[in-house]
Amino acid sequence: MTPSIATYIATAADTDAIGQMLHAFNTEYDDPTPSPKELSARLKELMNGGDTAVVLGGDSAEEPQGLALLRFRPSLWSQNLECYLAELYVKPDHRGRGIGKAILTAAMDLAREKGADYMDLGTSQDDKTAMRLYESLGFTNRERPDGPIMYVYEREL
Amino acid sequence: MTPSIATYIATAADTDAIGQMLHAFNTEYDDPTPSPKELSARLKELMNGGDTAVVLGGDSAEEPQGLALLRFRPSLWSQNLECYLAELYVKPDHRGRGIGKAILTAAMDLAREKGADYMDLGTSQDDKTAMRLYESLGFTNRERPDGPIMYVYEREL
Repeated sequence: MTPSIATYIATAADTDAIGQMLHAFNTEYDDPTPSPKELSARLKELMNGGDTAVVLGGDSAEEPQGLALLRFRPSLWSQNLECYLAELYVKPDHRGRGIGKAILTAAMDLAREKGADYMDLGTSQDDKTAMRLYESLGFTNRERPDGPIMYVYEREL
Repeated sequence: MTPSIATYIATAADTDAIGQMLHAFNTEYDDPTPSPKELSARLKELMNGGDTAVVLGGDSAEEPQGLALLRFRPSLWSQNLECYLAELYVKPDHRGRGIGKAILTAAMDLAREKGADYMDLGTSQDDKTAMRLYESLGFTNRERPDGPIMYVYEREL
């Protein structure tokens, strides 16, 4: 029997735990990163600003084992919001247990509740686990069924 | 000699022209689209909201021949903004003249002026002209030099 995974919406009290996870995420991939403390402070600003929400999850609410970080904005194409999944992370020791899927499912529910009608994200072609997860939850990286693949392009300014 | 291309930042007076171009853009690709009038009204709301800017360009400011539509949000990773290039469009009769490049260059300048330190966008693998343009202006679809390609995943909610 699979133990049940608890998911919950983060509050200002959770930003230290979130900052630590985001810092660990960047460190794992050798990406430059602000400190956990700086990330926690920035998250408080963003969450207060209202365009940012974080869903946490794990065996209990005492120590979250993963997160989804969402950014919202008014859609150009409708009167609703659109939601960008900026980060999805599960701590290394807790991967493979369905925590990412539970968190992303809860994040999609939260986005719908907030009035979003669309969600997008970027991921790397070598993260096959993430791609399988996104595809299992109805995401596609093709512009149309059997159509061309969509790429993320980016640059520093 | 290449005629010079004028670029300028759109105001509320330009939303009808922008709505018409966005409508034509979707129609060209058989995508569902709000009417030009609805798009114009929504653009006024978004531009008033402060997270949206549009750069127009063409032979003169009388009749724009293309646009870049930008969305801004506070960055998680720095104290600056990040900028999403939501749309880049040039009218069919005016393609191949460097209008897209002039508009995107002006859009990058505007993003820097507004305090953005990062820009991203999504594009389709079969739009080779767009990919060449983005690459010529320093954008990459790889996570690291010679690293894996980054995909956009999306779904309706």
